[in-house]
Order: sequence, then C-alpha cells, then structure tokens
Amino acid sequence: MRRLVVALGGNALQEGGRPATAEAQLEVVKATAVHLADLVEKGYELIIAHGNGPQVGRLVLQNEGASHITPAMPFDVCGAMSQGMIGYHIQQAMGDQLRKRGINTPVTTLVTQVVVDGDDPGFKNPTKPIGPFYSAQEAGRMEREKGYTMKEDAGRGWRRVVASPRPVEIVELAAVKALVEAGIMVITVGGGGIPVIRKADGSLEGTAAVIDKDFASERLAEDIDADALLILTAVEKAAVNFGKPNQKELDTVTVQEAERYIKEGHFAAGSMLPKINAAVAFANSRQGRRAIISSLEKAIEALEGKTGTVILK
Amino acid sequence: MRRLVVALGGNALQEGGRPATAEAQLEVVKATAVHLADLVEKGYELIIAHGNGPQVGRLVLQNEGASHITPAMPFDVCGAMSQGMIGYHIQQAMGDQLRKRGINTPVTTLVTQVVVDGDDPGFKNPTKPIGPFYSAQEAGRMEREKGYTMKEDAGRGWRRVVASPRPVEIVELAAVKALVEAGIMVITVGGGGIPVIRKADGSLEGTAAVIDKDFASERLAEDIDADALLILTAVEKAAVNFGKPNQKELDTVTVQEAERYIKEGHFAAGSMLPKINAAVAFANSRQGRRAIISSLEKAIEALEGKTGTVILK
Repeated sequence: MRRLVVALGGNALQEGGRPATAEAQLEVVKATAVHLADLVEKGYELIIAHGNGPQVGRLVLQNEGASHITPAMPFDVCGAMSQGMIGYHIQQAMGDQLRKRGINTPVTTLVTQVVVDGDDPGFKNPTKPIGPFYSAQEAGRMEREKGYTMKEDAGRGWRRVVASPRPVEIVELAAVKALVEAGIMVITVGGGGIPVIRKADGSLEGTAAVIDKDFASERLAEDIDADALLILTAVEKAAVNFGKPNQKELDTVTVQEAERYIKEGHFAAGSMLPKINAAVAFANSRQGRRAIISSLEKAIEALEGKTGTVILK
Repeated sequence: MRRLVVALGGNALQEGGRPATAEAQLEVVKATAVHLADLVEKGYELIIAHGNGPQVGRLVLQNEGASHITPAMPFDVCGAMSQGMIGYHIQQAMGDQLRKRGINTPVTTLVTQVVVDGDDPGFKNPTKPIGPFYSAQEAGRMEREKGYTMKEDAGRGWRRVVASPRPVEIVELAAVKALVEAGIMVITVGGGGIPVIRKADGSLEGTAAVIDKDFASERLAEDIDADALLILTAVEKAAVNFGKPNQKELDTVTVQEAERYIKEGHFAAGSMLPKINAAVAFANSRQGRRAIISSLEKAIEALEGKTGTVILK
C-alpha cells in the first residue's frame, strides 16, 4: 500500500473560531504539512484533495458584499479562486516541510474542473446553503431576478441553496496522472473540483453547485489507481450510535457492514455520511483497495492498522 | 521552431470599458482561445503565461471593500486567487476549442510561485500602484500601522505601491516540465507568478510585489528551453519614435539594435519597455532563440516572419 489519496477536511485548513486571516490559515496548513510530510517519510506517495466550504463561503460573501465595487464572480469562479488560495498555501507549506527533511519531491496545485451531470437528481432538490443570509423579501427578489433557489435556514434568514451533484469526470485527470508518474505531489479537486457541465456540443460550462470533496476524492482515487483513500477528519474513528450511551467506534468494517450502518441511519448527512459513502465506493471498486477514515494526527497509525476506521471489500 | 511560451497581455483576457463580469471575461478568453488553437493546429507546442493586473487589482479592491465581512487577504494570496480565476477560464476555453477541432491536448493551470530576491533594488523603491485610492490621512495611517509604502497618484489620491522585482526562480518548474514532456498544455506564472522570498532556512514566504509577466515569461521560456517567446499585446509591432511623425515600426532587430533603442528611451516604462527587455534577454540567452512581439490576431503571421517585431541575437 503506497499510493494514497488524502482528503483533507476543514480542520486541516482552518482553525474554527479564529478570524480567517491569511496568517491564521497558513499556520494551520503548516501544522497539517508536518503530518503529511511524516507520511511521505514513511514512503507513501500522496495525492492531496481538500475541502473549501468555509473559504468559498467567505469568497461568496466578499464578492456579494463588494459588488458595488466590482461585479461579484459566480460560484464556479469563486471555487477556482479558492483552489488557487488554498492550493498555494498547501504547496508552499508542504514544499517547505519536505525540503527541511531533505526530501526533494516538488508539490504543485492543479486548477481542476470536475464534470457533473446536468440531470443529476441533486439539481432538482438543491440542499447546500452558500453565501450570505437575506430577508424573505430579498430572497424572493433573487428567486425572481436571478433564478436562484432560496431556502429559509433554521430561523436565521434566507440563503441561496445549490445542488450537490455527484462527480462524473475529473477534466484534468491526464495532468494529474502525468505529475504523479513524474514523482510530483499534486494538490487537486480542491473543494470537490470546480463544477462544470458538459454541453451537447462537448464544451464545458461552470455551474453553481458544490461537489462533495469526499466523493471527488473517491473518484480521483479510483482514476489514479490509489492503494488507499485516506479521509482525514476531526475524529479518530467513525462511530455508530454516535453521541448515545451505546456509541461504538468502528475499526475494520466490511462494505456490507458499512452499508447496513448507512441504512440504519448511523451517520450524519453532510458530515460522516458522505465520508462513509465515499469509503464504501472506493473499497467496493476493486479487491484490495482500502478506505480509511481517521484524524490527521493519527494518520500513520491508521495506515498501519492500529487505529482509524478501515473499510474493506 | 516548435515550442512557444506565449505571454498573454491584458487585452487577451478582458475587454476594456465593459463591466468586469465573469461572463464578459470568459467571452474575451474564448476569442483568445480561437487564436491560440490556430497556433496548435499549425504544430506549435504552447506554454501559456498571462498578466493579471486588472483582475488582481479588483480582487484587492474587493478584499479591502469587504473587510468588515471577512479579513482581506494579502497581496500574494490575491495573486494565487487570480491564477485560479484566470487559469480556470483559459483552460476551459482552450480545452473546448481544441476538442472542437479534434485535438486532444489536455490543458491545465498550475498554481505557480516565483522566487524574487529580497534584496532586489525594486524593494527599495516600490513603484507599482495596487488597490484602492485613499486620502492623505488614511495613507499616513496605513504607512504607520501596516508599514505600507503609499504614494500620491497623479492628483487622484494616495495608493499603496509595491516593488516590481525580477523573477529569480520558478518554484514549480519541475511540474511545468513534467506536464510539457507529457504533451499537456500548461498555463503557468499567471500574473508573473505569486511572488515569494526564500528565507535563510530555505522556506518560502509570500511578499507584496508584482513580478512583471513579461520577465516571468522570459524566465520560463529559458527554463523550459522554448524555441520562441511570443509576447502578445495590443499592437502588431513595437515602434521607435512612438506617436511622433517619424514613428517607425520595428521588423527584425538584433539584440544590439534593441539595446540601443532602449537606451535612447523609445519604449514606455510599464508598457513596451518590459516587453523589449524580456525579448532581448531571451534572444540573448542562446543563439537561435527568437523573441516576437505582436498581436494575438497576427500571431501566426508573426511566427512565419511576415509581421511582428522579431528580436534575434
């Protein structure tokens, strides 16, 4: 087991509760890079994927809030900007950390588009809230004027919601492969990738959607034939009966067991559920492929089978 | 002559005078992609560099203007975001245009850092204005509180000025080379690259500076052993005595002639001068290398020696 797709969660990129300055973010990313460099030292080849929820959320707020100064960019372009911003910090911090250890692996970020299906059921029922809160009146106007879908969000006001369709194809896959083959560490499908739809004439068009970064990482891991998909999050292991007296942390589980737990509703939508679903899909895609859910701090131990939730066919 | 570094100027990315919406920018980029695809059809291998002046300027304005909503990102991070934004549009438009012609060359953007020398004389005398205008009082406060250098800008107010240091090293060069060797079209050193300084311990740190995109393109063209550096701008040829009755457009000029014209002050700083300087540096770097300055529309003719200003050793 050597080639790993590492899916970094929000906690690997930004500390909750602190102002989201560039300095604060870079500090968190530098700490993340130490753990990732440990994996490289252990001989693993990493391909890095990451989320962008808080970052792209702030970009949307910033764009809307400064739209009297310059036109707000649409959601796909904000996604591209977030890939530049986050990728820059990761590649800088990773490069520094590797050089410090005498490892000359170059690190780089690919701006990455991911094709989604325009007929994905996600588009019929958008659920992912993005951007600022509006009054009911403003929300109504945006629905009429811009065609947005607006939903009331837990008494806090109205927000735009977008679809969260499944990733179908990583447009820049050939470039990812070429870099991996050349021994270069790649940061790709940031934020799940920039969502694009393939039109009838074959051309691509950005769309307002959020591709789950765990599903995009799974797609990537299959496409580049990774040995393992390592989904890093805030907890050391996934659990069933989470938060209840009979909570039970999961060690090694089979695809069948995991599917049963999913059906029984053990995992929170938008949190552990997509991770388990992505893990199951990867483990199921070929015999010998394993998906691991654990924390950044426990990544090595999890890869060595000492902790983490491992999903196997 | 097959391998080309193409340096795209502002007019290839954005139409002056129109609101800078994503739609308007993508439209211009799509038109640019048609010309670039023509070059590919002629058998040229392209590596694409581009400016980001107007785009990063707007990002800085937007960040400052919305700093009550979320912290403004520093200049290097804005540069990284602009690479994501512009690169995304170029790679999408180029990919579409090539596929339409049955050419399967993948196109991708690398987030690219470029090392500058902390002792570059540019840092002693910053000249490049960025971001919004301020009153004299605000400017004074920013000088005291943030250590910015502020200058009065032609009676319009005070602006922050940053250095425009020379590019020393393209950090992600190995990745550029790996992609080029794999037959993939790369978009790199966007906006001249994200400016970083190498600290005493070897680590990199972003800095507030603007690397001239023509110089960064020249560095790139040397480093990847391009046959030609094609600097595309709004005019078909460079000229001496520009705007005077004795204006003379330049066809083929030697490095020696070009250097004489530079000394005589024929070229406008911040406009044609960096292009000529970059062209001279590239032509001078090795016998047989040629630098060409022309317009997007005339690019093929210029490569065929029918127009454009060609600089040769």
